[in-house]
Amino acid sequence: MRLTQFFLNTLREAPNEAELASHQLMLRAGLIKKLGGGLYSWLPLGYRVLKKVENIVRDEMERAGALEVLMPAIQPAELWAESGRWEIFGEQMLKIKDRHDRDFCFGPTHEEVITDIARQDIKSYRQLPINLYQIQTKFRDEIRPRFGVMRAREFLMKDAYSFHTDFADLKREYRNMFDTYCRIFERLELQYRPVAADTGAIGGTGSHEFHVLAESGEDAIAYCPESDYAANVELAEAVVAKGVQIPSMVSLKKVSTPQVMKCEDVANQLNIPIANILKTLALISNDKLVLVLIRGDHQLNEIKLTKLEGMAQFRFATDEEIHEHLGGPMGFIGPVRIDSKIRIISDRTAKLMSNFICGANEQDYHLTGVNFDRDIENEIEVADIRNVVSGDLSPDGKGTLEICRGIEVGHIFQLRTKYSDLLKCQYLDKEGKSKSTEMGCYGIGISRIVAAAIEQGHDEKGIVWPRSIAPYSLAIAAIGYKKSAIVKDFCDNLESELIDAGVEVLLDDRGERPGVMFADLELIGIPYRLTVGDRGINEGKLEWTDRLTGQTSSIASDSALDEIMNNLREEKN
Amino acid sequence: MRLTQFFLNTLREAPNEAELASHQLMLRAGLIKKLGGGLYSWLPLGYRVLKKVENIVRDEMERAGALEVLMPAIQPAELWAESGRWEIFGEQMLKIKDRHDRDFCFGPTHEEVITDIARQDIKSYRQLPINLYQIQTKFRDEIRPRFGVMRAREFLMKDAYSFHTDFADLKREYRNMFDTYCRIFERLELQYRPVAADTGAIGGTGSHEFHVLAESGEDAIAYCPESDYAANVELAEAVVAKGVQIPSMVSLKKVSTPQVMKCEDVANQLNIPIANILKTLALISNDKLVLVLIRGDHQLNEIKLTKLEGMAQFRFATDEEIHEHLGGPMGFIGPVRIDSKIRIISDRTAKLMSNFICGANEQDYHLTGVNFDRDIENEIEVADIRNVVSGDLSPDGKGTLEICRGIEVGHIFQLRTKYSDLLKCQYLDKEGKSKSTEMGCYGIGISRIVAAAIEQGHDEKGIVWPRSIAPYSLAIAAIGYKKSAIVKDFCDNLESELIDAGVEVLLDDRGERPGVMFADLELIGIPYRLTVGDRGINEGKLEWTDRLTGQTSSIASDSALDEIMNNLREEKN
Repeated sequence: MRLTQFFLNTLREAPNEAELASHQLMLRAGLIKKLGGGLYSWLPLGYRVLKKVENIVRDEMERAGALEVLMPAIQPAELWAESGRWEIFGEQMLKIKDRHDRDFCFGPTHEEVITDIARQDIKSYRQLPINLYQIQTKFRDEIRPRFGVMRAREFLMKDAYSFHTDFADLKREYRNMFDTYCRIFERLELQYRPVAADTGAIGGTGSHEFHVLAESGEDAIAYCPESDYAANVELAEAVVAKGVQIPSMVSLKKVSTPQVMKCEDVANQLNIPIANILKTLALISNDKLVLVLIRGDHQLNEIKLTKLEGMAQFRFATDEEIHEHLGGPMGFIGPVRIDSKIRIISDRTAKLMSNFICGANEQDYHLTGVNFDRDIENEIEVADIRNVVSGDLSPDGKGTLEICRGIEVGHIFQLRTKYSDLLKCQYLDKEGKSKSTEMGCYGIGISRIVAAAIEQGHDEKGIVWPRSIAPYSLAIAAIGYKKSAIVKDFCDNLESELIDAGVEVLLDDRGERPGVMFADLELIGIPYRLTVGDRGINEGKLEWTDRLTGQTSSIASDSALDEIMNNLREEKN
Repeated sequence: MRLTQFFLNTLREAPNEAELASHQLMLRAGLIKKLGGGLYSWLPLGYRVLKKVENIVRDEMERAGALEVLMPAIQPAELWAESGRWEIFGEQMLKIKDRHDRDFCFGPTHEEVITDIARQDIKSYRQLPINLYQIQTKFRDEIRPRFGVMRAREFLMKDAYSFHTDFADLKREYRNMFDTYCRIFERLELQYRPVAADTGAIGGTGSHEFHVLAESGEDAIAYCPESDYAANVELAEAVVAKGVQIPSMVSLKKVSTPQVMKCEDVANQLNIPIANILKTLALISNDKLVLVLIRGDHQLNEIKLTKLEGMAQFRFATDEEIHEHLGGPMGFIGPVRIDSKIRIISDRTAKLMSNFICGANEQDYHLTGVNFDRDIENEIEVADIRNVVSGDLSPDGKGTLEICRGIEVGHIFQLRTKYSDLLKCQYLDKEGKSKSTEMGCYGIGISRIVAAAIEQGHDEKGIVWPRSIAPYSLAIAAIGYKKSAIVKDFCDNLESELIDAGVEVLLDDRGERPGVMFADLELIGIPYRLTVGDRGINEGKLEWTDRLTGQTSSIASDSALDEIMNNLREEKN
């Protein structure tokens, strides 16, 4: 491809609204163009990358035995009423009325549609298992779309759905998809990590997310460097070392802490470690006050909390409610000497504290030297309700956890019979009995992977693509293309030889100054650049530059094709 | 692919609602599944065909120098307000409100979006020409979706848009796209015809439709067997032979025709050819009555009529209006002795009539022996306002026209500066002056082509695919696959050898009776079938059957691979 025949418009600066490096670079490199909030057009350079990601995903899905289909984007409301999700899904679902005033949505996902197909076409165990996938445009009406294609409203997704006679076979296919995803991300040359995950709104049991590791990632991942363990912080269990509880050694004391409400500030004022402070959260669940206790340096994990009995839907208490039940104001509350009917839930780690500090339920006062057994009369439920932190024990007992950040690009679920029960998707087993099919579903964010690859691969000059998805393998920067017949002939010949050899080559034939060409080619991240000018041709030496390392070497102009092919082959191995 | 691992469910009968052969066969062969009105899922077998069509289109677009992009399906109303089409497009456009109550549509076409991209990114003549295309899901909210994917609401389309400095360059690219479309339909192995067309709602000047020829086609096409001439009947000019007008030889006479109103019935009663009857249509345009005259055996072409001055928006007159202006009732009207201010438009051919019959503007009476010059006092405008019929002279003067029916699968337009003027898409020319870009647009209905191919290629047994888009090239019908180890080993080996040789082979390993296998394989239209059973293997002879002709020949079992490869190669040439 010649740049004069291509559609490329690079920008020196990205629009202000772009915060993330990938968003800035995708706009600057002309990969995408904004049409509206969370809506982006993929321009030719960006589309080449998107298509390469798509093709790798398709190739591995086929290899795994899945069959490609294409379901409509527009789905009738009736199906979603059957699964109960028409109401549950919320405002993220783009609801539509057609000209006859009938209700539809722009599908945010396709469990209902695929289950409707399966319940019509799958009659017998002989037709199982089956895994159907599609690569298709989805829409989720994000309240605040941001980060470019990373969290766009319209996006390209691969979604697969498998059907099985029993759980064992579902688990076999789940493992097959797990391995397929690993192959996909390895072929994409991305650093990634599969992590145990919460199942969220999709439902079912058993789920893994696949994260591309990047500091800017929205998700925190806990992993154990000494083992395979990895889980989303939402889910990772906070394991408590079997320790000895230090007995209550000091007496309870009320101290004045005027206007000091946050744990950090209390620790500062009293000159003690923040881990000595007990954080008390006042929540309302089923119209009753619940106190939740967390160590001052820890964070509540709301997902873990909602799984406890009676806590599925809670909210934080208002100042009035706190006054009413505890007497004291927000910021100074604690579990000591309160109404004995108030439910108290303590995090496991917090329950091991002794001689700690907490609020006195009185404006501008805290208590010090507090101990659970001696000072708190209410029954205390103990549960894992905090986020893990770096240094926590790994749940697999093989070391301690570290925290890293990741971008979720894949998610696989064991749905079990959730949708087949709701939509009555049944088959006849060998004995002729009707049974619900076991189901799995497997998603990959195709368009998000492009942004994630940039988050992982960029420097101050621009994008550094993995070779597997770079829009072109090699760029020729032709210095003086429009002035020198020698340069033009050399580049034209080399380009056509490279095309014949199957190399995706981009010839910069614009006749721009070297600085302009280099800056553009670095910004768009072509892995290798061959610089060709009169001097190089005269001296018989051309400059070869590696985008990733910036290292240069020279290539003999009279054996350029062979040397280039060697360089590209070597890098592949 | 083995049929036991595939997802195929054939039906003996199609649902009643399917009228068209392609719709019936696509449902029966399990290519598609209905989700809702005009909404279809593509199942694995159908998707393979769809993808093959898509890939041929993509391949030829790339060869033609076009660059692939992907624009959002969801488009903001503001852009459509700029072009004025938000209101004009009508109810076919699916309008949507997002969670913030902002207006969007599910794009039925992308002129606005692409012009918005071009006006941002194209600054200079140096960046032109450019041709950008996408293969993407479109939505048109048809009032009565029917014929399966032929007229679905959601469908897959290739749409391309080109930008140019001047009209000459637009015409060059238009020719390039015309030739590209011919190559595409030749590679698809479809009988097709490019025809001159009306530009319709898209606007601009110059337009060709590409039709797949089929008796069930919705469009009538006039073509000249002796030349290249072809045009949609909507547009084809009715040329009048230079003849001599026969002088008025008979006198005007009023005849009683009680309750006889239709031209056919009048001709029958009076025992004269229908071509001797003048059909008079009473229309209202700009609140005035207009009479339109057509020969009794011809049809009014409303598109031609609307292009005449003052006729852009007309309607048929009511019985009251006819009484008011002409005195007589509907069914008995004519242009003789009427208010001299009434505008009369006559079709060219009608104007050549003499001694003809028309209504008397009186209940149950017609006039005979009518002649224009002698009996009609009003001024008569003469224009081409009828549909051509078989036997009309070809407008290129090279013979006479025939009429055939076609399915529109492609449409190319010279948009000129319609959208670039409205959206201010301008570039700087060599002199530094701002100019509107000249534009072309080029559509192909990818999903409709699949249905059109079936309309053209089917018989009583099912589908007969063109080899270029058949889901598999060859089927192996394994008789006794589950009972005979010899058959199983032979088929398994042959299958893997064929896969290694790059042949797309479908092995029917279900162990069904031959009749069931043959019926399914014929229904889904695999071009060749190799039948393998114990007897064939013992005798060293296997049966090879051609789906199109039904002819069989034999293949030696000990050189099966070579003979199959020879057969497939021969058929390609």
